[in-house]
Amino acid sequence: MGRWEPNARERLVRAAIDLFTERGYDKTTVIEIAERAGLTKTTFFRHFPDKREVLFGGQDTLSRLLADGIAAAPESATPLGAVMAGLDAATAFFTPAQREWGPRLRAVVAANSELRERAAAKRDGLALAMTEALQKRGVPDPASALAAQLGALAFERAFERWTEPASEQSLTELARQALHELQATAAALR
Amino acid sequence: MGRWEPNARERLVRAAIDLFTERGYDKTTVIEIAERAGLTKTTFFRHFPDKREVLFGGQDTLSRLLADGIAAAPESATPLGAVMAGLDAATAFFTPAQREWGPRLRAVVAANSELRERAAAKRDGLALAMTEALQKRGVPDPASALAAQLGALAFERAFERWTEPASEQSLTELARQALHELQATAAALR
Repeated sequence: MGRWEPNARERLVRAAIDLFTERGYDKTTVIEIAERAGLTKTTFFRHFPDKREVLFGGQDTLSRLLADGIAAAPESATPLGAVMAGLDAATAFFTPAQREWGPRLRAVVAANSELRERAAAKRDGLALAMTEALQKRGVPDPASALAAQLGALAFERAFERWTEPASEQSLTELARQALHELQATAAALR
Repeated sequence: MGRWEPNARERLVRAAIDLFTERGYDKTTVIEIAERAGLTKTTFFRHFPDKREVLFGGQDTLSRLLADGIAAAPESATPLGAVMAGLDAATAFFTPAQREWGPRLRAVVAANSELRERAAAKRDGLALAMTEALQKRGVPDPASALAAQLGALAFERAFERWTEPASEQSLTELARQALHELQATAAALR
């Protein structure tokens, strides 16, 4: 209590995903997560408001990285060029731990309707953050909304590919590839 | 109880939106909704599993109409042509009542994080239904996912415009316009 806990946040996420996988999300308590991580309930609540947010706690950071990356793109950047800059900035912060637990996190979310709804809202939140950042650059509607949707789809697809065991590329490379593929598909869509 | 209740479903939705607007979503009970609608709790539960689903009860029907419309499009239809056929089929079923309570329903959802999450999941569900219907027509990934996203965006935008008091076009016309606009934007996106 009160002492410095190295990697407390990551230890809590890992413990939660382990327990959700073993026992199910509904049957796991905050106290059990804290115990498994070798931490206290107080430390848990310093990092997360409840057990659900352990799985989605990175959303605000991710939204901010995407928006800041879009804002920092050169003035001459196209809308999708700016989205790419946002994806570059955000993907650079992902850790090997997130890659390792990605497939189990996805399985936990897929098994629970409340978590699926929360994941859908996270996706909407990321797209909205990108839409607003693009609008601040002067990208009009609906190009801002559409470019943001392409960015959200590219991120999702890249993350899924990155967490496959055989994957050898970085998340940043995979996001760039996914966005290029989506842009080419969008241009040809009839 | 047991007797035929004309328009029970619509009366329950209207009563729920009235009460959610007056008292707030959290402070309204199923019994109060049923009473306001002049119906019993038993009738309520014949139509909806809980008070939240009163606001989202049309999702399965809407998904089915979109998917069936896509499936029934001519073999020669392009992916977006098939999405348009889905939107035509789905939008034809909307009633003046849905138009009238649309803005209040949106305000209720916007004021509550649980409802916003449910709305995001509904949007994902509609996009997934369209993606799968397009894949059954042989549209490959990611064109199927992207065309479905354009369809979901077009539907959202059309519904919002339709519920504006000054709007004079049909929901079907507005959806067609929105999809055309999004297609042109997607084709030019760089």
